[in-house]
Amino acid sequence: MIDYGRHFSEAIEALHAEKRYRVFADLERIAGRFPQAIWRPGSEHGGEAREITVWCSNDYLGMGQHETVVTAMKNTVSAMGSGAGGTRNISGTNHPLVELERELADLHGKEAALVFTSGFVSNEASISTIAKLLPGCLILSDELNHASMIEGVRKAGTKKQIFRHNDVAHLEELLKAAPIDQPKLIVFESVYSMDGDIAPIGAICDLAEKYNAMTYIDEVHAVGMYGTRGGGISERDGEAHRIDVIEGTLAKAFGTLGGYITGTKDVIDAVRSYAPGFIFTTALPPALAAAATASIRHLKESQVERDGQQRQATRTKDVLGGADLPVMPSDTHIVPVLVGDPDLCKRASDHLLARHGIYIQPINYPTVPRGTERLRITPTPLHDDTRIEHLKDALVETWNAIGIPFASELGETTARTVEVTSLVVSKAGG
Amino acid sequence: MIDYGRHFSEAIEALHAEKRYRVFADLERIAGRFPQAIWRPGSEHGGEAREITVWCSNDYLGMGQHETVVTAMKNTVSAMGSGAGGTRNISGTNHPLVELERELADLHGKEAALVFTSGFVSNEASISTIAKLLPGCLILSDELNHASMIEGVRKAGTKKQIFRHNDVAHLEELLKAAPIDQPKLIVFESVYSMDGDIAPIGAICDLAEKYNAMTYIDEVHAVGMYGTRGGGISERDGEAHRIDVIEGTLAKAFGTLGGYITGTKDVIDAVRSYAPGFIFTTALPPALAAAATASIRHLKESQVERDGQQRQATRTKDVLGGADLPVMPSDTHIVPVLVGDPDLCKRASDHLLARHGIYIQPINYPTVPRGTERLRITPTPLHDDTRIEHLKDALVETWNAIGIPFASELGETTARTVEVTSLVVSKAGG
Repeated sequence: MIDYGRHFSEAIEALHAEKRYRVFADLERIAGRFPQAIWRPGSEHGGEAREITVWCSNDYLGMGQHETVVTAMKNTVSAMGSGAGGTRNISGTNHPLVELERELADLHGKEAALVFTSGFVSNEASISTIAKLLPGCLILSDELNHASMIEGVRKAGTKKQIFRHNDVAHLEELLKAAPIDQPKLIVFESVYSMDGDIAPIGAICDLAEKYNAMTYIDEVHAVGMYGTRGGGISERDGEAHRIDVIEGTLAKAFGTLGGYITGTKDVIDAVRSYAPGFIFTTALPPALAAAATASIRHLKESQVERDGQQRQATRTKDVLGGADLPVMPSDTHIVPVLVGDPDLCKRASDHLLARHGIYIQPINYPTVPRGTERLRITPTPLHDDTRIEHLKDALVETWNAIGIPFASELGETTARTVEVTSLVVSKAGG
Repeated sequence: MIDYGRHFSEAIEALHAEKRYRVFADLERIAGRFPQAIWRPGSEHGGEAREITVWCSNDYLGMGQHETVVTAMKNTVSAMGSGAGGTRNISGTNHPLVELERELADLHGKEAALVFTSGFVSNEASISTIAKLLPGCLILSDELNHASMIEGVRKAGTKKQIFRHNDVAHLEELLKAAPIDQPKLIVFESVYSMDGDIAPIGAICDLAEKYNAMTYIDEVHAVGMYGTRGGGISERDGEAHRIDVIEGTLAKAFGTLGGYITGTKDVIDAVRSYAPGFIFTTALPPALAAAATASIRHLKESQVERDGQQRQATRTKDVLGGADLPVMPSDTHIVPVLVGDPDLCKRASDHLLARHGIYIQPINYPTVPRGTERLRITPTPLHDDTRIEHLKDALVETWNAIGIPFASELGETTARTVEVTSLVVSKAGG
């Protein structure tokens, strides 16, 4: 007799042994009081519900509680109900979704857009389908690309080459080495979410033109937040028109759910027509589509949220850095603080939550390379100066209580560790 | 220079040539007036919005507009906002989602449950992850399994054997031929959605016990609709306790969005901890989780919707059959009507919509085998007798106008065609 149960319990044990078993915090966000939430701890923390501050949300601008967004969602539920009722092809194509796709095409200056129920599926389905439709396609993929892009590359089943993170010279080497008549697809992100660094989009587009390659960019950690209309880094840098496919999410800065791609009518129609992960899945509910459209429209006009986010992120970096906390270099709103050990990282996170009511998820291997375990902080416009002071005090107390090295204690080591971080393959997110 | 655009336009042309290019109808459902919707036709149909009746919804019981469900969703949007704000691990585990998972575990009498943002992802991620965790696993898969299960089997990358549809003798042959100490996973559906037939669950469980195999059942077209608490065919047949993993959807009879699995604590924890498609994706919004919980709780108690659906489905079959329309045999609420040609099927669908205000999507290859193209009708409790009469008249007029064979004109051919249907591999859904 095969003991099936043993295989599963052993798989879980292995994660405990490596100190990377994940425990999900049970949170209840409080609309109108972002970034506050109710935390329901397990019995090890007394089990009683209490109010905490979320410092690691991907609702980067707090739009998930913006009145315009909440109202659009409620009104659409009232008018059209809770779900879509079918796949896109079988009665599920609802009018708010059609409008949302128009809005997204406009956001990125493209002919068409296609919405998926998640960013993960949009990357996996689109990259694999596009590459499969190009005979003999070679995919060139940044080594730090997100897990969903890696799955898309795998599923394509075509040839692939991994280029060193943001390394344009290496990318050119690989492009040069490939036959001139071989179709090529360069897939990369604009903002890498664990380090907060940014791709050299213009230089990558130069190479794509020189070597006649298609380009596919993941802007999930940038849409809504960069560019004067929230079109992402490709808009900010004036490069959007040079990119073939811009992928984004509705679930982070736009505060709702779902992912999307934008591009030419034909590329979008081909993915729509050939991707099983799109065809055989229920459409996004009309209420979520309407909420997303409201959010995008608001952020096309309003700069307040973007300005506030940049201001508070910079302030957070300054205040934490000023307190000798090992803030890792970042060009964006993402503020990683180095811990460098999975067990200490988990303990720091638990301590911050139980003792200080501050929720920051530990980020351990395989999401980041071993030795670069970190707390990843995402200040929003609603994390005000008082909250930043409180965060600093709580982190300093925690660093002392748990025994984590401060920046001045790390010296050379930090510099090296941080450099390594941006060179080693990791899978972001999760 | 490579002409990338040409590859995509040619891919689309190929679908037009095969008469299987899909056009999505732009619909706006009207809450409280299910199954009515506003249709916004393209310019070829005058372009003016008009009211129509949806006869192909997967919102099988109309729960997507049930007051309890709509109210739960709106209240939760008010209380907690529009989105979850992160992956399950990074601040996205919201309290309504934790409650939903408890409710689902209870629904199927299992220890635990795990929610995904779609049924497609739940099958793809769970089947592949479970099989990968069983060394040398052999997957035994029904030949008519849904595209999402096929993707899960592919992604597992383990050995697989396809057994003839619902053919227990063939399944036993394959089980017997495999080494006794090889882990085995049988994956199948309870209700096959294109033909409406039902798996012999008890007999499959007998074999699983005899040959020491794990069982994984997809109940997406049955949950909410069968069993005294809506636990699906496995509940109705009293076999739920013998199945290892029961997968279901929140997007059909429960009227919201998302998919799920239920099973032992360890299996669920292993999928939770190892499946990239689960880990690296934003959590279901709290409002959708709360709406789903309300729907499940309602259908655990209330028999009215289930009784109404069975009554109206039976009546539809009788009335259409009585009018000599070629209704295909079905053991469930699904009522397929044979057309047998992709072009006629598309034209019948267009004619029904433009002329009669009746929306039924054409189902063509590859969703069903060539030669068995059909209209797939899904009567709900809210499709009353008057609507059924209207449907019958409209179908008869359409059959005459387009020149589609009636049942009496098909004779022997129908019988053979229909038999073939349940023997040929297809990919359901979409």
